[in-house]
Amino acid sequence: MLTSTLIKELNKVLPAKDILSSIEERYVYSVDASNNPQYKTTMPDAVVFVENIEQVQKIVQIANKQMIPIICRGAGTNTVGACVATPGGIILNFSKMNKILEINPKNLTARVQPGVIVGDLQKEVEKIGLFYPPDPSNLKVSTIGGSIAQNSAGARCFKYGATKDYIIDMLVVTANAQLIRTGSNTIKNATGYNLGSLFIGSEGTLGIVVEATVKLIPKPESSQVIMAYFDTVEDSITAVNKIIENQLFPATIDFMDKNAIETVEKFYPAGLICDKDAALIIEIDGYETSLSHQRNTLCEILRENNAANIQYSTNTTESETIWNARRSSMAACTKLKPNVTTDDIIVPRNNLAKLVKGIQDICARHNLTVCLVGHVGDGSVHPQIPIDYNDKNEYKHYKIAKSEIYHLAVKLGGTLSGEHGIGLEKKAFISQVVEGGALDYMRQIKKLFDPNNILNPYKIF
Amino acid sequence: MLTSTLIKELNKVLPAKDILSSIEERYVYSVDASNNPQYKTTMPDAVVFVENIEQVQKIVQIANKQMIPIICRGAGTNTVGACVATPGGIILNFSKMNKILEINPKNLTARVQPGVIVGDLQKEVEKIGLFYPPDPSNLKVSTIGGSIAQNSAGARCFKYGATKDYIIDMLVVTANAQLIRTGSNTIKNATGYNLGSLFIGSEGTLGIVVEATVKLIPKPESSQVIMAYFDTVEDSITAVNKIIENQLFPATIDFMDKNAIETVEKFYPAGLICDKDAALIIEIDGYETSLSHQRNTLCEILRENNAANIQYSTNTTESETIWNARRSSMAACTKLKPNVTTDDIIVPRNNLAKLVKGIQDICARHNLTVCLVGHVGDGSVHPQIPIDYNDKNEYKHYKIAKSEIYHLAVKLGGTLSGEHGIGLEKKAFISQVVEGGALDYMRQIKKLFDPNNILNPYKIF
Repeated sequence: MLTSTLIKELNKVLPAKDILSSIEERYVYSVDASNNPQYKTTMPDAVVFVENIEQVQKIVQIANKQMIPIICRGAGTNTVGACVATPGGIILNFSKMNKILEINPKNLTARVQPGVIVGDLQKEVEKIGLFYPPDPSNLKVSTIGGSIAQNSAGARCFKYGATKDYIIDMLVVTANAQLIRTGSNTIKNATGYNLGSLFIGSEGTLGIVVEATVKLIPKPESSQVIMAYFDTVEDSITAVNKIIENQLFPATIDFMDKNAIETVEKFYPAGLICDKDAALIIEIDGYETSLSHQRNTLCEILRENNAANIQYSTNTTESETIWNARRSSMAACTKLKPNVTTDDIIVPRNNLAKLVKGIQDICARHNLTVCLVGHVGDGSVHPQIPIDYNDKNEYKHYKIAKSEIYHLAVKLGGTLSGEHGIGLEKKAFISQVVEGGALDYMRQIKKLFDPNNILNPYKIF
Repeated sequence: MLTSTLIKELNKVLPAKDILSSIEERYVYSVDASNNPQYKTTMPDAVVFVENIEQVQKIVQIANKQMIPIICRGAGTNTVGACVATPGGIILNFSKMNKILEINPKNLTARVQPGVIVGDLQKEVEKIGLFYPPDPSNLKVSTIGGSIAQNSAGARCFKYGATKDYIIDMLVVTANAQLIRTGSNTIKNATGYNLGSLFIGSEGTLGIVVEATVKLIPKPESSQVIMAYFDTVEDSITAVNKIIENQLFPATIDFMDKNAIETVEKFYPAGLICDKDAALIIEIDGYETSLSHQRNTLCEILRENNAANIQYSTNTTESETIWNARRSSMAACTKLKPNVTTDDIIVPRNNLAKLVKGIQDICARHNLTVCLVGHVGDGSVHPQIPIDYNDKNEYKHYKIAKSEIYHLAVKLGGTLSGEHGIGLEKKAFISQVVEGGALDYMRQIKKLFDPNNILNPYKIF
């Protein structure tokens, strides 16, 4: 990489303060939230903080000319290496493009820059009674741009869907520095191909999203969180299936196993019950007048399926305490070992019990602690594995365990990623879930949109 | 086209009874539901009834070898010429591939062949408490394959989204006769590019959908239809805006103008009130315990916004009567003139009043009757124009009026099609709403998937 030439070119576009090029600064950007050592083998050539679309276009021009990779980065919360620079390249940091440009209550839309934090957008729209449902667990720091790149979801996906269901229009800078618009400012659209959906979940490999228009919905009038504990994992999963079979439609059906409960309670005490094997976190929402009916029906099903304890929030603060506990599981895991890794395999819901049991068995066999949390209503779990990357033997077993977990998901008719993406972490496994023909079309699409392979190269495939 | 060679080849794949090649038979397939005379200039070379995936693959092989277009056809309810053979080609009729292959209540999914009728799927899943929301007005005859091709929506799109929001996986036969799988049997997926969404709404120009897995949701416990009449169109549209601003979330906010009400009531009497200028058809749904609250709040808003009459259904039969009336507006229009055309322009919701008023003005200026119905909650209207195609002067004015309506939609920040597609009808206008760069990528995607241009050529662009 021609670093000095590169820096000179970048200086024509950005003030010096917005270009990081020292080794210390670049090192920080050599990893994502997983801190996975395998990503540290290379570093970005430069990290730049863009403030507007024109700057993005100019930097892409430089990159295209010098054939240097461009890697977009929001908050860097990705855990599959999708936002690290392999091998080298320019990290486009979007933290300064973090403005909510418009909230339009008549159209039920918001127009945002990619660096807007998901939780901030939610708070702003909720102030005027609107709702942006996608809720990745790291929503207090993760960005809309990252959500679009990875098609993030979250607990509320069960009822409300994933990021792709809420993006109606985008401005995208393509690999040749052109600015294109992907959709329309309307709630539905059958005008030509759905270009936008191709960029969503493409992990920054097809284009650079520089603005998005999101669809909003009315905020549910009321909500309540029910936490149910079970003596066995099996009972909790049976309860999940029964809720679905009984056609209840809560906003979330989330899960924590004993390890997750204990670890969270130890480091971030929230009053969780630690002697049970599993817990479900179920949020019901809707019109106030429907809540007690929903809660009663749900609790009846939970009790019939051996829930040992059932608690429910009586106000927003109590709801938030439960969700904060659930969402802090990954942070809590880092208190057990220097690092923690997570995953997001997903299976058809009828194979959920086999997935949960299988992951626990695999980890036990490899002597790994696993804190299992997840959006089980979707058939999706997050095995969070505390790990010391410096313990070579542990790392070896971890790698084998991961591979076994992927094979298990495939065997159960599922797929590798429900909401985190493929990045570097899972690219060796993608051909097990996406068959040759489809994969070949994906590669050709990549070539069409990025002939010089400068947009986040070597990810996904 | 080498018709005799073609028929000989087709005979190797299909029994003679499943190949239509007489001029009378082919003529039937030269138009779609619009009966637009401009489509009649060419006819398909043959119409074939396929029964399985292998037959589709073999026919695509023949077409690819002989460079003959393939046009997929479900019920032929399209109105933009997307399912007619221009110029010539083989019509693949999917009416025999009409099986619901699986309904899986544990996964909340159904696996269907493309010829399954939307209404039939809905009825089947509702028997076991599940729900497939997309409800194009012609759902009693239109097929899932057609819904996927055009990304159909319907009245319930306001709350529940369009077809694209319910297709999680597909089997697609590509232009080179390969069978590919586009997604996974899971409720969310962040594994590689979202190939499926590229096929949805692509009007059969990128691949042939031969099987789809749809996402189902629990059927709402209860629903009620409220019909509110207004003395002026303006009042009705103001009411729509107020409902949205008040964060109510009904399943539908549909509309009929005076012409539509009168025409329906004249030919299919349903007890509609004919002396009012506009009516809204609002379906509320959800838990039984929430309905009276929803209805009361809604009626309060309607009354505050000058609703002259408010009626509501007290049972399913009454609800169905109202929806049947609304959905029969196009059929009723054919009693006024030999033909009727429809449209599906859409604008950001805050420009809805201008769109409705503008369309009425344009039609009045050209001395055309227009029955306006539409999913106004989405910002979408269907101007249904009764017309005698043999009246050259009327047809001339109709063509100008249509062009003016498209320009109006563009001027109001909207787009050409919300749920019907572009087909032949609007291809001359697409560059007004999709800018050059995006359109160019669409064309390149077409070339990538269909290098010989055999899949429904000359549509969209």
